[in-house]
Amino acid sequence: MSKTYNQIAGQRPQRIEAISDGVFAVAITLLVLDIKVPVSEAIKSEHDLMAAFCGITPKLLTYFLSFMTLGIFWTGQSAQYIYIEKSDRNLNWLTLFFLMIVSLVPFTTAFLSEHLNFKFALVLYWLNIFLLGFSLYIHWAYASKKHFINIEGEERSVIDKAMKRRIVGGQTLYALGACLCLINNYVSIAAIIIVQLNYALGVFSPRSKK
Amino acid sequence: MSKTYNQIAGQRPQRIEAISDGVFAVAITLLVLDIKVPVSEAIKSEHDLMAAFCGITPKLLTYFLSFMTLGIFWTGQSAQYIYIEKSDRNLNWLTLFFLMIVSLVPFTTAFLSEHLNFKFALVLYWLNIFLLGFSLYIHWAYASKKHFINIEGEERSVIDKAMKRRIVGGQTLYALGACLCLINNYVSIAAIIIVQLNYALGVFSPRSKK
Amino acid sequence: MSKTYNQIAGQRPQRIEAISDGVFAVAITLLVLDIKVPVSEAIKSEHDLMAAFCGITPKLLTYFLSFMTLGIFWTGQSAQYIYIEKSDRNLNWLTLFFLMIVSLVPFTTAFLSEHLNFKFALVLYWLNIFLLGFSLYIHWAYASKKHFINIEGEERSVIDKAMKRRIVGGQTLYALGACLCLINNYVSIAAIIIVQLNYALGVFSPRSKK
Amino acid sequence: MSKTYNQIAGQRPQRIEAISDGVFAVAITLLVLDIKVPVSEAIKSEHDLMAAFCGITPKLLTYFLSFMTLGIFWTGQSAQYIYIEKSDRNLNWLTLFFLMIVSLVPFTTAFLSEHLNFKFALVLYWLNIFLLGFSLYIHWAYASKKHFINIEGEERSVIDKAMKRRIVGGQTLYALGACLCLINNYVSIAAIIIVQLNYALGVFSPRSKK
Repeated sequence: MSKTYNQIAGQRPQRIEAISDGVFAVAITLLVLDIKVPVSEAIKSEHDLMAAFCGITPKLLTYFLSFMTLGIFWTGQSAQYIYIEKSDRNLNWLTLFFLMIVSLVPFTTAFLSEHLNFKFALVLYWLNIFLLGFSLYIHWAYASKKHFINIEGEERSVIDKAMKRRIVGGQTLYALGACLCLINNYVSIAAIIIVQLNYALGVFSPRSKK
Repeated sequence: MSKTYNQIAGQRPQRIEAISDGVFAVAITLLVLDIKVPVSEAIKSEHDLMAAFCGITPKLLTYFLSFMTLGIFWTGQSAQYIYIEKSDRNLNWLTLFFLMIVSLVPFTTAFLSEHLNFKFALVLYWLNIFLLGFSLYIHWAYASKKHFINIEGEERSVIDKAMKRRIVGGQTLYALGACLCLINNYVSIAAIIIVQLNYALGVFSPRSKK
Repeated sequence: MSKTYNQIAGQRPQRIEAISDGVFAVAITLLVLDIKVPVSEAIKSEHDLMAAFCGITPKLLTYFLSFMTLGIFWTGQSAQYIYIEKSDRNLNWLTLFFLMIVSLVPFTTAFLSEHLNFKFALVLYWLNIFLLGFSLYIHWAYASKKHFINIEGEERSVIDKAMKRRIVGGQTLYALGACLCLINNYVSIAAIIIVQLNYALGVFSPRSKK
Repeated sequence: MSKTYNQIAGQRPQRIEAISDGVFAVAITLLVLDIKVPVSEAIKSEHDLMAAFCGITPKLLTYFLSFMTLGIFWTGQSAQYIYIEKSDRNLNWLTLFFLMIVSLVPFTTAFLSEHLNFKFALVLYWLNIFLLGFSLYIHWAYASKKHFINIEGEERSVIDKAMKRRIVGGQTLYALGACLCLINNYVSIAAIIIVQLNYALGVFSPRSKK
């Protein structure tokens, strides 16, 4: 029976990772469907076409924003699965809810890019980021509490804290960035992208070897 | 020759699981394409936008419903593959028919969300759920009959019954929930979602450790 | 250096299988996007909705046809990779061309479902099936010739012939089915579906145990 | 602790490869959504339908072009991962940026097919190819510099040079091909496709065994 149990514990994370990679891959690629190719009878010269292209730069901005969002949370989730080696149905469902929120990103992105000057659109987008962070935090906390982590002792405590601190720290900065929509939506988006780039590129700094 | 046979038996379930994860991942993510961003000349204030957003809440409801449906059947199928370690062409095709029904979910969801007050739309949606359960039942029964299961003796019998009972039990509740459309479609959808949440969250209860 | 070589030979088929599963999974799920939910001001009763649903049955027919097509060729390709254990760049590109033809299936399906009474649409669809079979044949013949197959001696010769005969046999029947469009397109589609069902379900017969 | 480290180093490339296969698979399949089925009241005969089909050949041309582009870069990236056996967060993000550019291909393809006579559209498409090559080059250079490659000594140096030369050589030819748009866009596209076919089919030549 212990063999069976090991097989369950060993196989599940693989499938969870597989469907996660699938959902992220589709979500990333669906983002591009929001960037509509400008089609118009009025486009008669190279100059017209360039002007039309410039007209879709807000879409490219939100595309980049959402690509960074998905990239960061994919990285975050796959970092957790470096350590998670067991799973149960609860963790399975925590992942599925996380993926539900992931698959909403193309929608909130399209909503934001269509209504780029409205605070409501930006708050909705931020809410999506918040729920991503929230569900990822719960996911790790549950796995950690249930001892599904393949590390022990002090090292585990260190990584446990680092994982949680990273999410809380990031979410604090995203929330601050979202608050900047009180000034202007573009300022707010720029701030969120800067936070994201820091997460993606900041790891080049010497302090983080892993 | 036995080596070759083992490779066949060992490799097939992997591929079946891979394409299953792919179809589920795409289906889950395609659901969101049904939630169209409200676009209108009439949206001129934050208040207008919030009102427009409220107008798409039925779409969010069916999105959640179908996400739960896909999540439950993905969990159900992947639970079967914890135990299934061999496969043949019949099991392959039983899986493919199951995936065909999975890939119809975005369609029946869009059909329901577009015609939310029509019993026909709800019955069509329920039929999709029923066929998911039916094909998953046949899939397990066939694998079990053909001894493709990696457990033996009494334990196998216990798990065999549990698998079948779970599907029959769930389908009974879904059918009852669908019958509630005689009263009202929203009541029926709410009932189905409650059954689904029970399946997803009920596992937090102490009786089910695995 | 031999270690490196083995890693190349061992890793490539895995990646080829992974992208194949991905392309098939997306293609299968994209098929459903061709089934548009009937939306009309004229739908005012359950009866109207049922009538509208009946109006899309041709789409459901082509959906089923194409699902069977993709299922059969996915099964065929994954059957080849039970035996193929090495790969090179040529086999890689033969697979990619095969996948290009796979990803055209949603297009030729939509073309057929939109122009269901035109012979040209049916011939185009048949051409897609033919190219699938043709590229899969070349794929196997190349792998077999290059000794990328993990079986030897007489068994290899038996499987080699069986693989080729299966494709040639199927394609002959598809071509005959397509010819029936000289009578009527529906007759032709029905014939092709019958051939497909025979491939999918015929394996239940005692002669084919594997 | 070294066990944990190995697990990190071993697991990450797998996930990176999985999401890469997913993004490429979806991008390849999404390309076909750009080929719209001709629908018109004016199509009344087989001849009309054939004429309408001929009208979408430019779309088929760009479809083929982009399929080749994605195929070449998928092959290129998966060739790198034959040798890359470790990863860190930087390599993770270099891959993600590469995938962002991959997922833009369906957009630049649609842009080109819609504005096939405009130099701006062709230059935009070429820019996409250039960024694919550029990011893939950086990706390899980083992995090589960080000693994430599973080969040593002179062999490593040989492969390192071959990888870089291949990308630089290809990009030079693509840039030359793109310059031909000064004459005519179709000439330019034909030239790029010839370069691509050379990469795909040229490997049949005796000089390249791998």
